Amino acid sequence: MTEAKMKNIAVIGFGNIGTGVVELLYRKGIAGLKLVRVVDTDLEKKRPITLPADYLSRDWREAVSDPGIDVVVELIGGIEPARTIQIAALQKGKDVVTANKKLLAREGQNIFQMAANLDRRLGFRAAFVGCHSLIHEFRQAGTAAKKFRRIHAILNGTSNYILSTMTREGKTFEEALKEAQAKGFAEADPSDDIDGLDTANKVRILLALIANSYQRAGDFPVEGIRDISAQDIRYAGELGYSVKLVGVIEPKDGVFYVSVRPALVPQISLLGSIDGAYNGTETEDEYGVVSGLVAPGAGTYPTADAVIKDLLDIAEGRPMPMPDSARPLALGSGEKEERRYYLRFSVVDQAGVLARICNIFWNYNISIAAVIQKEATSKDFVPVVITTHLAREGDMMTAITEVDKLPVVKARTKVIRILA
Amino acid sequence: MTEAKMKNIAVIGFGNIGTGVVELLYRKGIAGLKLVRVVDTDLEKKRPITLPADYLSRDWREAVSDPGIDVVVELIGGIEPARTIQIAALQKGKDVVTANKKLLAREGQNIFQMAANLDRRLGFRAAFVGCHSLIHEFRQAGTAAKKFRRIHAILNGTSNYILSTMTREGKTFEEALKEAQAKGFAEADPSDDIDGLDTANKVRILLALIANSYQRAGDFPVEGIRDISAQDIRYAGELGYSVKLVGVIEPKDGVFYVSVRPALVPQISLLGSIDGAYNGTETEDEYGVVSGLVAPGAGTYPTADAVIKDLLDIAEGRPMPMPDSARPLALGSGEKEERRYYLRFSVVDQAGVLARICNIFWNYNISIAAVIQKEATSKDFVPVVITTHLAREGDMMTAITEVDKLPVVKARTKVIRILA
Repeated sequence: MTEAKMKNIAVIGFGNIGTGVVELLYRKGIAGLKLVRVVDTDLEKKRPITLPADYLSRDWREAVSDPGIDVVVELIGGIEPARTIQIAALQKGKDVVTANKKLLAREGQNIFQMAANLDRRLGFRAAFVGCHSLIHEFRQAGTAAKKFRRIHAILNGTSNYILSTMTREGKTFEEALKEAQAKGFAEADPSDDIDGLDTANKVRILLALIANSYQRAGDFPVEGIRDISAQDIRYAGELGYSVKLVGVIEPKDGVFYVSVRPALVPQISLLGSIDGAYNGTETEDEYGVVSGLVAPGAGTYPTADAVIKDLLDIAEGRPMPMPDSARPLALGSGEKEERRYYLRFSVVDQAGVLARICNIFWNYNISIAAVIQKEATSKDFVPVVITTHLAREGDMMTAITEVDKLPVVKARTKVIRILA
Repeated sequence: MTEAKMKNIAVIGFGNIGTGVVELLYRKGIAGLKLVRVVDTDLEKKRPITLPADYLSRDWREAVSDPGIDVVVELIGGIEPARTIQIAALQKGKDVVTANKKLLAREGQNIFQMAANLDRRLGFRAAFVGCHSLIHEFRQAGTAAKKFRRIHAILNGTSNYILSTMTREGKTFEEALKEAQAKGFAEADPSDDIDGLDTANKVRILLALIANSYQRAGDFPVEGIRDISAQDIRYAGELGYSVKLVGVIEPKDGVFYVSVRPALVPQISLLGSIDGAYNGTETEDEYGVVSGLVAPGAGTYPTADAVIKDLLDIAEGRPMPMPDSARPLALGSGEKEERRYYLRFSVVDQAGVLARICNIFWNYNISIAAVIQKEATSKDFVPVVITTHLAREGDMMTAITEVDKLPVVKARTKVIRILA
């Protein structure tokens, strides 16, 4: 590696991930990459690694305006000042590496476009620790080199940890969330993770890559896992399924069908076997070839490793996978999507109830694959679980609305899609 | 892409894979790669793609000695004339791309060494269709950039297809093999696949990559799946395991512990969920990070795609993952390896038999995790299945030899390792 190619790096944000990156760049040392500045507002905090004082700074402006710095690694997260830092760095002619999926999901249109227009590189593998080894392939899809039929992905370790605990230990959502918080797998305010927002951010960036468009796509359905009950997980298990929070991208005839929702996947399948805080991705290409990947979705070392991979791409002049065009990006409505469904009805325990539900389904061409009805343990109502064959989403939703109006139905029917 | 970088390609072997490669290079067209010659001894055969006559030749010597050809793609397989073709191409200053794992496993020491000495590139992703996206990482392990604790891999689609069919449909090995042959998932002579030889060839090449050594490693244990019975698969299922043919590479203190054997893996795990003709790889790195990959292990399109990836690496001047040193490569003996075991004893149905077995285990510090003994259905003997906690291989083998000498034991005890 010639000295000419050596890249000078500033790391902004000296938290867990920043410490991991500093560890690799400064202590281990990586050819072609030279750490020259580390910025954090808090330099007093005790950290596992001590840097000489001349590396340290409290002011990101100083790093971003230093002409000796080639690449700015933004690891503070959130919207501001991360947004201002990234934009300033690009405008000063620097390349940027980041783990900030929230910012790229919200402001990607501006930031990707600016990077493309200024011919700068923007690395964000670290925003996709669980599937970063696929992002080159995802980007190729945007140039027609590779077409996908579907991408189904578990992208949030916290949710998967909670669902795994509920499944393994029969815990309720609240108990499993508390355990995840106690063990450091969930934050004090876990809503980004458990309400599907973090998964949705990642799906939005993946979509930009696959479509090769930094145009902001419209909204798509996002549901989290707060309403997944222990009994749904138990019934799913009896039927051979695991409940997972799945990001779905399915391109069809130039339109993208996108959602983030809890789903039933077969227990013995790639996504079904993903346990704890892991992430997993299942893709099917245009030839029907299905491939899968399982990897940790977070953690200091895997995230820092992803940052280093981006830095090496920059140092060695490899093309970066980033959306660099403004192609229009259309999302399809789910109305006509065909899925299988898991339905849990709460009905009064009397003759003819199942028949009435089945009659409504019959009217909408929905056929039933399996039924579980156990003997009643409550006087108020009894759960009836039905799985269906493929049905159109529009038909299903209309049918459920009708079912829920029946006087024998005592609570809103629980609807979970089956991906299989 | 400038004309100067354009690579002229000769494809030798116009069978299924060759047809796939020609389809991509000639019909689809790929920037930087120009198909100029296709060689096969049989040019009369009907093929899904027709090439102009001036592309075709029956004589590989003509292609290999043509100074206008930059890369020779050898897709005829087997030892000769593939070996002579590859060596002649390297000596003529050409790069080589191949899917030939048998040749590289047997002659890798000469061929890799020759490629390294002549500064030529040798691409063999297509020999690892099921995990080719990992071979860069495997090669990095040989330069200490990345260390693995273990690689457990299902690398043979035929065996996995047969084991999956036995599991799903309760078939015997013979029935499942016949079905695989009828459906084209197994060859008329299936021994390379079902006796573990194909997996062993792939493991040997992976080992060369991970150790970054083209020195031929010594022999390691290789067992196939012929002796896996329907009842073992059934018992494994009752205990929550799938039976898989697994290649194992575990580096420890500079020594590699390597084997190819049937193994029990948890049903709900990456390897346990791999169904049909798929391949899967589970790796654990030095930080304890476990990652997994599932992909088709064969097929015209996935294999041709892997060939194209190698050709693009060559055209675009990227470093190729190949072993390029003669570092000594030591294999460890399994004697002291600690594993869990599945054991099926065939014993006479009388009092005290289980106690006698347990006493022998006790003497060797082997402790029992689970027992299944069902009521006898035969007068001759009854199966007793035991799983153990971790035990040293040496102890286990000695204990089994003692058990098998007991007069109440009526057949050799079936031993399958548990990887979990």
